[in-house]
Amino acid sequence: MTDLEIAQQATMLPIKEIAAKIGLTEDDIEPYGNYKAKISMKFEQASPDPAHKLVLVTSINPTPPGEGKSTVLVGLGDALSLLEKKTIIAIREPSMGPVMGMKGGATGGGYSQVMPMEDINLHFTGDLHALTSANNTLAALIDNYIQRDNKQDLDPRRIIWKRVLDINDRVLRHTITGLGGLSQGIPRETGFDITAASELMAILCLSTSIADLKHRIGKIVVGYNHDKQPVTVAQLGFEDSITILLKDAIKPNLAQTLAHTPAIIHGGPFANIAHGCNSVAATKTGLNLADYTVTESGFGSDLGAEKFLDIKAPVLGKTPDAAVIVATVRALKYNGGQKLPDLQTENLDALKAGLPNLLHHIENIQQYGVPLVVAINHFVSDTQAELDLIKDTCAAHGVTAILTDSWAKGGEGTLDLAKEVIKKADQASTFTPLYDDNQPIEDKLDAVVTKVYGGRKAVLSKKAQRQIKQFTENGWGNLPICIAKTQYSLSDDPKLLGAPSDFDINVRELVPKIGAGFIVALTGNILTMPGLPKEPAAVKMHIDDDGTIEGLF
Amino acid sequence: MTDLEIAQQATMLPIKEIAAKIGLTEDDIEPYGNYKAKISMKFEQASPDPAHKLVLVTSINPTPPGEGKSTVLVGLGDALSLLEKKTIIAIREPSMGPVMGMKGGATGGGYSQVMPMEDINLHFTGDLHALTSANNTLAALIDNYIQRDNKQDLDPRRIIWKRVLDINDRVLRHTITGLGGLSQGIPRETGFDITAASELMAILCLSTSIADLKHRIGKIVVGYNHDKQPVTVAQLGFEDSITILLKDAIKPNLAQTLAHTPAIIHGGPFANIAHGCNSVAATKTGLNLADYTVTESGFGSDLGAEKFLDIKAPVLGKTPDAAVIVATVRALKYNGGQKLPDLQTENLDALKAGLPNLLHHIENIQQYGVPLVVAINHFVSDTQAELDLIKDTCAAHGVTAILTDSWAKGGEGTLDLAKEVIKKADQASTFTPLYDDNQPIEDKLDAVVTKVYGGRKAVLSKKAQRQIKQFTENGWGNLPICIAKTQYSLSDDPKLLGAPSDFDINVRELVPKIGAGFIVALTGNILTMPGLPKEPAAVKMHIDDDGTIEGLF
Repeated sequence: MTDLEIAQQATMLPIKEIAAKIGLTEDDIEPYGNYKAKISMKFEQASPDPAHKLVLVTSINPTPPGEGKSTVLVGLGDALSLLEKKTIIAIREPSMGPVMGMKGGATGGGYSQVMPMEDINLHFTGDLHALTSANNTLAALIDNYIQRDNKQDLDPRRIIWKRVLDINDRVLRHTITGLGGLSQGIPRETGFDITAASELMAILCLSTSIADLKHRIGKIVVGYNHDKQPVTVAQLGFEDSITILLKDAIKPNLAQTLAHTPAIIHGGPFANIAHGCNSVAATKTGLNLADYTVTESGFGSDLGAEKFLDIKAPVLGKTPDAAVIVATVRALKYNGGQKLPDLQTENLDALKAGLPNLLHHIENIQQYGVPLVVAINHFVSDTQAELDLIKDTCAAHGVTAILTDSWAKGGEGTLDLAKEVIKKADQASTFTPLYDDNQPIEDKLDAVVTKVYGGRKAVLSKKAQRQIKQFTENGWGNLPICIAKTQYSLSDDPKLLGAPSDFDINVRELVPKIGAGFIVALTGNILTMPGLPKEPAAVKMHIDDDGTIEGLF
Repeated sequence: MTDLEIAQQATMLPIKEIAAKIGLTEDDIEPYGNYKAKISMKFEQASPDPAHKLVLVTSINPTPPGEGKSTVLVGLGDALSLLEKKTIIAIREPSMGPVMGMKGGATGGGYSQVMPMEDINLHFTGDLHALTSANNTLAALIDNYIQRDNKQDLDPRRIIWKRVLDINDRVLRHTITGLGGLSQGIPRETGFDITAASELMAILCLSTSIADLKHRIGKIVVGYNHDKQPVTVAQLGFEDSITILLKDAIKPNLAQTLAHTPAIIHGGPFANIAHGCNSVAATKTGLNLADYTVTESGFGSDLGAEKFLDIKAPVLGKTPDAAVIVATVRALKYNGGQKLPDLQTENLDALKAGLPNLLHHIENIQQYGVPLVVAINHFVSDTQAELDLIKDTCAAHGVTAILTDSWAKGGEGTLDLAKEVIKKADQASTFTPLYDDNQPIEDKLDAVVTKVYGGRKAVLSKKAQRQIKQFTENGWGNLPICIAKTQYSLSDDPKLLGAPSDFDINVRELVPKIGAGFIVALTGNILTMPGLPKEPAAVKMHIDDDGTIEGLF
């Protein structure tokens, strides 16, 4: 059976019953359909019990065969529930760009899925649409402002606020708008990003109240005036209307797993071109309401986990009590040079060659002082010799690796991992930040490149060097950095698999996201608007006359 | 008190209680929050009792002081409820473009409003966002198709499918996309319309099942190949994925008035640049469930009502049993040449000069054979002499004009109108269509221009003449026409007030909307993407730390 067929045959509990499991009354939630709800913001504003545990799930570098991070995460949540721990899963909401493009959904797989999967992978409760709408309303207000009196003397050539769509659409990367004559606006070069990469998405994920949301929106720098001074949303007077458009989107969404574990699914920045973590509001709500909150960060530890620990954790006010690194035999063999069609065949040499990738991600987490366990997500083609090689290698580095079978067996197939996670989360640990925000921007870039990616240094383009000087003069030098980098390699070259060294990271441009509170560094050829593949997933979908969907995943 | 303050102080009933009033069980609805719901599609597929009445509310040409059509409509619905008629209001859902721009909401006013007004005027249940998303996913799939193998030989210069946003954004009217080199797509001139003007919006409003929706989407002509032959969505294989994105948006939305009359709010095409009626699904659901369904069409009878009667009614399979034409003393005086600042002052000469506008709209409705009544929406500045002049003039033309006070008194202020509407709807009447769909396109254009606008004829640009020839060859000659025209005048010149004659209508271009099932004719300078005014409504909005909104209207 496909993931969609398993999901379509499952029985969901009414969302108020899921809410009741974590002590939420009908007054604490707003239903969106019978199986989704928005949760009141009051839980994200309370202080969680320090004894409540936070578990972060990350993975090795993603590969074409897939690692199944979401599947293991959902299985882990269900397993903790089976062990009678009050558990909440707190994950990101999917973007429709990859759903219609190539990545597929982000709702787990097999018997470890969150539900209702069709809704979650499509419009869900409309948060991404609200963000798209708010982002583009701000863009329209800005273009209207420069078309009218332009009191702030905003320079049309220096507007950095782009439009967004929650769609993979390469032709929108570089556009000219405002053509057609005097009354059609001021022509200028601009472009669209995907909504998941937008500053408003980051702001939504980092805000903890309406007041905070509005304050952050006001601080957004939309461009520069003719004196090259930054111009903010607050200077233009647009922060209230943009906040109004996000007043519901900021509330966390409640759903459930196939085994009826409560799942809070909220916020969806990508980890390659954004900060890659679900919302602080959702995670904090989980920490308030449950003994165990199991959360994730996008792609490998070089991207999502680094940003979770360096950007999200300081806002959350809590670091993970334990981390899980998901790996598969297949993905490690691919990292070791085995070709895609051959991954079904045992190949201990390829596995050995790929294991440094896993070890690198282990070291990444260890240096922060977060206790960790490796989850080997089981596939039928795995051989015992291959599994033993991974376990032995991990053991030699003092790390436990546990086989999970979340896809086929759900929580039952993830019990061993859950027990180990409980142990790790009970260990005393000391968190060590990667860098001090007050270091110069160059040093923070180098810290991530050398300590997390394993590279030599960050090589800055002339433009990036000039920007660092300007940003520091503007008082933005003490913000954390958010590196946009390919997910496929620890380097900025997607073809360099395994655990490369002796590489530089090429920073071509910086983008100030002052409302979000970080500086984005664009590296290599990374693009903030994906394109569609030759055969988009959309073409394989089918809907019957009665509304039944096939081929969604 | 402002409309928003009245709305914020009102008490709503839980949506399941509203549903129960019209015989809907909890299984028939999906709640979206506590005060909104989606209604099952089964009621739009049943045949309504022929004794159930349909009332169409229209108005004179809109003016800057406003007419209050929505306010009278809501008051009428509440009055019918007070008279113990089982009543449903079936209206359009607002676009956020005008909400953030200048028009304000579309939820009535004073004590005649639909609720929850903030939600309805902002994201509501996400239908417009789903449409935006579906429209732009189709656009991305098309651009990806021509970037890849382009098996249908689609000509990049002849793609007519545009992107849309639910935003007033003039700089997106004329754009170049696909810049930046080989891997960024094929550069071409294109542009964005507002979502309310999109073909998918029209399709949503005219579809009566998932199968019909998919069939219509498949028929959309997205452009032409290098042999100038039309290329459809079905030929490209994209109809299933686009239908999937609209599978929830197609379900009608349930809300309520301040007096708890059930309100179905679904579909939102503008009447100047689209067909201007709420969905067939919503209207039919109303007709199935209630004795009286009170619906509206956008702007004056020249726009929305004409399109209701010539485009929507044939799909609905029912014509109105009665019509209400809303007028105000102020708007008629404005039509008669009185200036905006002077409208508070009695001016019988200006009123007399403006009355031909009302009489023209009366004749418009009469020629279709629909029984009608005029509603004079009361303002405090109206004088008795002015009111008498309107009533007497109407009486001289055999029409009853009734004073309503829906804003200040809700249903109680609209009882006289309701009683007259009941009488009219019980009259025997014969519906006469304006034109036969099988007439040539030129003749159908002339029929609307001469019989509805009161003009001489439709003057066709060279391009329009060429298009008519092509469209007829393509087999599209027998579709109804949907004229895009300024709402401010019966002519295509917004400055020609009153009831002008001796004018031509200049048709500059036709747009085939084969999925929707009509041909759009663009006249005068009408634009399908509005712009923002100098002081956008967005700038006057405020949100408190607790989420309370001020200045929305």
